[in-house]
Amino acid sequence: MKVIRTVSGMRAARRLMAGPVGFVPTMGYLHKGHISLVELSKKHNDSTVVVSTFVNPTQFGPKEDFDKYPRDEARDLAMLEKAGVDIVFLPARQEMYPDGFDTWVEVKGITDKLEGAARPGHFLGVATVCNKLFNIVRPQRAYFGQKDAQQVLVIQKMVADLNMNLEIVVAPTLREPDGLAMSSRNVYLNTDERKAATVLYRALLKAKEMKQAGEHDNATIRGAMMEMIRAEPLTKIDYVSIADTISLQELEQIHSQALVSLAVRFGKTRLIDNIVLT
Amino acid sequence: MKVIRTVSGMRAARRLMAGPVGFVPTMGYLHKGHISLVELSKKHNDSTVVVSTFVNPTQFGPKEDFDKYPRDEARDLAMLEKAGVDIVFLPARQEMYPDGFDTWVEVKGITDKLEGAARPGHFLGVATVCNKLFNIVRPQRAYFGQKDAQQVLVIQKMVADLNMNLEIVVAPTLREPDGLAMSSRNVYLNTDERKAATVLYRALLKAKEMKQAGEHDNATIRGAMMEMIRAEPLTKIDYVSIADTISLQELEQIHSQALVSLAVRFGKTRLIDNIVLT
Repeated sequence: MKVIRTVSGMRAARRLMAGPVGFVPTMGYLHKGHISLVELSKKHNDSTVVVSTFVNPTQFGPKEDFDKYPRDEARDLAMLEKAGVDIVFLPARQEMYPDGFDTWVEVKGITDKLEGAARPGHFLGVATVCNKLFNIVRPQRAYFGQKDAQQVLVIQKMVADLNMNLEIVVAPTLREPDGLAMSSRNVYLNTDERKAATVLYRALLKAKEMKQAGEHDNATIRGAMMEMIRAEPLTKIDYVSIADTISLQELEQIHSQALVSLAVRFGKTRLIDNIVLT
Repeated sequence: MKVIRTVSGMRAARRLMAGPVGFVPTMGYLHKGHISLVELSKKHNDSTVVVSTFVNPTQFGPKEDFDKYPRDEARDLAMLEKAGVDIVFLPARQEMYPDGFDTWVEVKGITDKLEGAARPGHFLGVATVCNKLFNIVRPQRAYFGQKDAQQVLVIQKMVADLNMNLEIVVAPTLREPDGLAMSSRNVYLNTDERKAATVLYRALLKAKEMKQAGEHDNATIRGAMMEMIRAEPLTKIDYVSIADTISLQELEQIHSQALVSLAVRFGKTRLIDNIVLT
């Protein structure tokens, strides 16, 4: 496994690659969810698997957790080596955002909602860094987790609108045995918060059950979910949403596909999760 | 010469190209300046020369000349065929901007000045369409004319900031025998306006002479240029600028390289021109 820290180095390595390149962009502090993306890339017969680990400063708001976002390069590299990754791209901030950097990729519309509404500027940073990484790595396929459902939609829209030459592959959310979605941010949780955090998936399953039992009213289902979340100590709801899976417009009545998503704070830690109702 | 009208057709043709691809993006209604870009591409041994002609609606303001911008497809195709172009990419508006399109590439900073200040949103449209065209055509080199000096800077900055994988080549402005820079918009001029328009280049040469004669003061040189332009009938100055060639910041004293640029209306027709003082 080769570790590359400069854009020019990554470009040079890319020029030598023959056959399809699979790419897994991450912010490091890897978990099994990330590794499942690597495995998917291998399953798709990508000749070369490239993983980037870069904690992207431009997708964090000024009051968010950029500085304390967990980092452990040695652990990440060991996990990626074991997973059979070919190249790890590990750029410094200055490599990605040199002095004077000032070009931004903005996906409008769907970024006004959910995470975009709660975290202004977040998707501007996400779209910009992914655009740059796609141009540097030039993969045939890039792999993202369904856990960040809106991020997937934003990236897919950017790729389509800007005619970028790659396929976005989405992999299912991996969960801990008690249902908590794997996330690098789970490490922030203390014992009580960790216990309370299981309510995220329980609330999502509640929505699924209610729909299956014939309930179609958004307000009724969301009401039941919020009641369940508020019954847990230490929780503060950012949003609970049942929306169209493409436009992210909130649905009044749920009759076809719907994205059920939520963002909840447990103490200082903000977690998100989602499921798709079919 | 092959004429391609769809993005998917252009992509398919691109996949078959071996060797370096040279690309000349235009808005059609071609003149010798455009053809000089094709010739430069051939001189650089580009294996395939692709020209796009697309009057890009997103770079025109609501009160600008999008609807009346001159178009003559048959004439353009004849000129390109004669120039030895391999592929003409001629997409319809709906191909480039399908319903729901909403992703934008914004170069900040230098776009606040000169043309960007006079034409709000212009460079958002320019950067976005060039980003898309570069992704569709995937050239090794793209050719632009120095006449649109700020456009060149914006595109170069976008390519650098977003790590796009191509070289931007800039070709000198071609001029009519009386000095008027070639432009598709010159066709708008009536006889009197056409005569008056020669003042653009004369004013630029005036700046050059004054600098060579030892004058370094921006205000003094610009004053002389503006006086010369105002002496012509039918003129209305949008701006006259002597600025840093990279930041486009107006210079107080001109001691090193400087971009002398101007935008002047002749009746309803707005023309721009520039020279670089060294």
